[in-house]
Amino acid sequence: MRVASRHPFPHPSIRRLPLYLRFLKQLRDAGSQKISCTRIARELDLDSTQVRKDLALTGIVGRPRIGYVLTDLVQAIEKFLGWDQRALAFLAGVGNLGRAIIGYEDFRRCGLDIVAAFDIDAGKIGGEVFGRRVYHPAEMPALTPKLGVSVGVITVPAVAAQEVADVMVKSGISGIWNFSPIRLELPPRVRVENALLTSSLAVLSVDLKRESPEAAPPFQRPPARRSR
Amino acid sequence: MRVASRHPFPHPSIRRLPLYLRFLKQLRDAGSQKISCTRIARELDLDSTQVRKDLALTGIVGRPRIGYVLTDLVQAIEKFLGWDQRALAFLAGVGNLGRAIIGYEDFRRCGLDIVAAFDIDAGKIGGEVFGRRVYHPAEMPALTPKLGVSVGVITVPAVAAQEVADVMVKSGISGIWNFSPIRLELPPRVRVENALLTSSLAVLSVDLKRESPEAAPPFQRPPARRSR
Repeated sequence: MRVASRHPFPHPSIRRLPLYLRFLKQLRDAGSQKISCTRIARELDLDSTQVRKDLALTGIVGRPRIGYVLTDLVQAIEKFLGWDQRALAFLAGVGNLGRAIIGYEDFRRCGLDIVAAFDIDAGKIGGEVFGRRVYHPAEMPALTPKLGVSVGVITVPAVAAQEVADVMVKSGISGIWNFSPIRLELPPRVRVENALLTSSLAVLSVDLKRESPEAAPPFQRPPARRSR
Repeated sequence: MRVASRHPFPHPSIRRLPLYLRFLKQLRDAGSQKISCTRIARELDLDSTQVRKDLALTGIVGRPRIGYVLTDLVQAIEKFLGWDQRALAFLAGVGNLGRAIIGYEDFRRCGLDIVAAFDIDAGKIGGEVFGRRVYHPAEMPALTPKLGVSVGVITVPAVAAQEVADVMVKSGISGIWNFSPIRLELPPRVRVENALLTSSLAVLSVDLKRESPEAAPPFQRPPARRSR
């Protein structure tokens, strides 16, 4: 298989693991005990060879005609992702997206525990968002080692993203989850994952475009935009 | 190249196109005119053969020793994604995530124009969010054909997601961008893209896990969670 990045595990496969996990947990909670690759592939509209390769990343191998034991498979995926452990995180930027992420309980099930938030808005500092205290970014360098925080989540506007990333780096944070639409300049020791929401939109756009002939409804030429 | 899904274009490649687009527009706006595959690959930490294949999806081919003309490449990617045209969208669920998405101006540059929002909260209905009117979902079937809306964005809590998806389907919407963590049951004519934020978190988690020995800081065993 071609690996898209230089990293040892193919990112597209890693990105699919949470999709499997969600589906497998639903089955498990509904009382199922076993699952085959073929069924996972069919239900999630994927290629079964691909599913087998993705799941093999976790070290687990299904048995012919039996498939996987659900609880083992769930556990293997969670262990591979490190979601059986937890990382403490700070979030910077208490706007709508920041609030949404702090309030999204699923991340805690993925081992990410956002313990405090940061904002430069004096009206937010000292307050709480879903039980997490809001601090000024100037307090981050002292708080990071004190609380044992390793991950920084960036939900500030684009113009402020690099500045807050620099504070995170200075604070000793080792991984950044970047929701801002800019590419951050970071030292090699700091891992970054860009949560580019437009990547997901791209897939839907291409799917819909194939359905509808060019320039016909439901797509219309934008009246206000010219070619740039 | 192995294709992960049954669709004619490989989704991992489509997901990378917005990443290229963002980088190429930054270069173009900074005054650059040409770009090579090798440089794109280096700057974005990808494999250059993969970059060439991804960009070839759009029908554009770089010339040896010259590379791509930036404006042509930007235009080709936008055209391939259908982002040179626009789709009108409804958003259901005016919580924090819904507000963040309505207020995120970048989606408009990606051809997605959210024209109205829906919520069951009487305190929100009749109001506006970033200039978009909020309606009760019961009004969707009449408003969809009237306004020519083709896309539904779902940002309601998990328990309400299927119900609102059913209303969207009944309203004649052809594509759903699902931010809820559940798998929707939809008729085959409706396209769906699940914006699974945990897919992005998975990549960061695996990267960080490789950096830190198991059970050592910055990862700690969660005191409150037992194996499930």
